Amino acid sequence: MKLLENQIKAHGQVLGENILKVDSFLTHQVDPTLMREIAKRFAEIYDKAGITKIVTIEASGIAPALYTAEMLGLPMVFAKKSKNVTMNDAVLSTEVFSFTKQVSSRVSISRKFISKNDKILIIDDFLANGQAALGLLQLIEQAQAEVAGIGIVIEKSFQAGRQLLLDKGIKLTSLARIEKFEKGQVLFAVADDAEFDEK
Amino acid sequence: MKLLENQIKAHGQVLGENILKVDSFLTHQVDPTLMREIAKRFAEIYDKAGITKIVTIEASGIAPALYTAEMLGLPMVFAKKSKNVTMNDAVLSTEVFSFTKQVSSRVSISRKFISKNDKILIIDDFLANGQAALGLLQLIEQAQAEVAGIGIVIEKSFQAGRQLLLDKGIKLTSLARIEKFEKGQVLFAVADDAEFDEK
Repeated sequence: MKLLENQIKAHGQVLGENILKVDSFLTHQVDPTLMREIAKRFAEIYDKAGITKIVTIEASGIAPALYTAEMLGLPMVFAKKSKNVTMNDAVLSTEVFSFTKQVSSRVSISRKFISKNDKILIIDDFLANGQAALGLLQLIEQAQAEVAGIGIVIEKSFQAGRQLLLDKGIKLTSLARIEKFEKGQVLFAVADDAEFDEK
Repeated sequence: MKLLENQIKAHGQVLGENILKVDSFLTHQVDPTLMREIAKRFAEIYDKAGITKIVTIEASGIAPALYTAEMLGLPMVFAKKSKNVTMNDAVLSTEVFSFTKQVSSRVSISRKFISKNDKILIIDDFLANGQAALGLLQLIEQAQAEVAGIGIVIEKSFQAGRQLLLDKGIKLTSLARIEKFEKGQVLFAVADDAEFDEK
């Protein structure tokens, strides 16, 4: 998605070997207008896919997931990273390992929000090693629901996540794919939605 | 806000003495249509207030804050509950005590996102003891910015938060105010936006 790539070029900061900081429009401060454009793209691609629910993980996934849900006329569910006092129902739950933080943490969704009749589109802000996405896939599998695809705002294509998901036969839609960082600049691979830019 | 009160009556669950569970449309599964209506109300009330930025706290505050930001044509910033690896800038930071969890946790916003010229509207999903709101007020005070008001989706009026904020002279806009729970039912006090329902 050209608009997104341009935002990354203009406002993203490359930190060290493999970190891209996009806290001015996605992960800390959020630009609602850009989120809406991102959601439009996901909705365009998954419009006819029979999706029944959007699933993401707190916190940075919520903004793009929420708008995508609205555009498809669906509810959005965000997986929680810690068990809440009011979360007394049966839960779908799994461990997610963070390479950045080098710790595992538990991720949960109340079972009542995903049924085996659901067809789910997962939306997340970043794909790197794919552990968060794998965790969400496991939760959805526990509920015996179907996954129609995974929509990612920014993919770090030089890390393991993409191949991991493709190997599982999952449809992956990354709107910006980072090939590598070079001298503090971002070099992009062809995004999964590139054909929609041409329209 | 009548629409919101009706949603709470229809889908909220009263747990024990003082817990209201609204995880089917606000705190876990999110209804984008309702969030938009909530945001419309906040935007209507704060339209002429000269707001420059919406501030909330992850995770359940993000949805109503995002739509409010969009409607007012502003960016939204969410305070983070744990320090992120990419959060290497100077930060505004404070401790927030949770009565529910009986622990303090650190809440932070990168300093660069709030300047002393900002006029801020805080949006959050719940107001109970007011500790999260106080924490956000402290962060904004550290940045020497101004707070124009606090917009709350659901206030538990029988807890200390409301009076705490009013005593500080803060403008408070709670769209649903819970007077008490009685036999598992929710009894509402007059909401701060009640006059807008009449229009």
